[in-house]
Amino acid sequence: MTEATEAVEIERKFLVAQLPVLEELKAKPVRQGYVTQAGDSVELRLREKGGAFFLTLKSEGGLVRMEREIEIDAAQFEALWPATEGRRLEKTRYVGALPDGTGFELDVFTGTLAPLVLVEVEFDSAEAARAFTPPDWFGADVTEDRRYRNRALADDGVPGRPERRG
Amino acid sequence: MTEATEAVEIERKFLVAQLPVLEELKAKPVRQGYVTQAGDSVELRLREKGGAFFLTLKSEGGLVRMEREIEIDAAQFEALWPATEGRRLEKTRYVGALPDGTGFELDVFTGTLAPLVLVEVEFDSAEAARAFTPPDWFGADVTEDRRYRNRALADDGVPGRPERRG
Repeated sequence: MTEATEAVEIERKFLVAQLPVLEELKAKPVRQGYVTQAGDSVELRLREKGGAFFLTLKSEGGLVRMEREIEIDAAQFEALWPATEGRRLEKTRYVGALPDGTGFELDVFTGTLAPLVLVEVEFDSAEAARAFTPPDWFGADVTEDRRYRNRALADDGVPGRPERRG
Repeated sequence: MTEATEAVEIERKFLVAQLPVLEELKAKPVRQGYVTQAGDSVELRLREKGGAFFLTLKSEGGLVRMEREIEIDAAQFEALWPATEGRRLEKTRYVGALPDGTGFELDVFTGTLAPLVLVEVEFDSAEAARAFTPPDWFGADVTEDRRYRNRALADDGVPGRPERRG
């Protein structure tokens, strides 16, 4: 029941100018919350994704971040989940591929973050990330805009929208 | 395999002026490490204690701290343990009781922290903690001295001793 990964993530993240046809894509409901707060030395995330539960540690950083993830069971998840109160988000994740084979993950946010939509593309190298030409349906590149990181969205809501909490 | 606890800890911690007779006490080897760093909003600790493995979240604070703990398996522990590098300690924990029945935990540190010894007493209320009269074999009260917190010891070594790391 334990799945451990240690990996370097190289991703770019974009707004979405025009939604692709979602019916053709695999969809999974996701809810996640953060135990740590912005400014902490490490990010501890709890995530439920399609009925599986994960605990993930990430170091801070922009383009390249270190990640350790383990699968946990439902009881372990529920015992820790209360510690994420006030730092949660929910979304439907659609997984697909661009015509050149590059995989993408499209996040359609639900709950208080709707109707925000973001798309992420993962790369094998920083060179590939820099060389990537986004298709027309992608919007602005927000890779380096910390307001669009999941944790910032969970903490602060949609950028430019009035504060959702008092 | 999952054991979840959510509790308020009320403890006092002391140096040890004179070691009690250890042979009569239950002893367990402990190793623990911290994923988070000093100054983070939460403390994430991994601990192996007598062959069992635990992941513990603690909020910051002095006399009263919030704690959530789950038991994890060896594979989950080993997957996350590398994230504690540079913030670890090992000790033998002896558990006993004072003549009035108050339980204590005596930590004899091994490795780079030897020969440090600390004793902790846990209470049901802040009133009981304040009313406690330590026995003669207890030394100075270090409850409020952050240098004697396990995390500070793991980070910085024994207070007053020259830095153990370059």
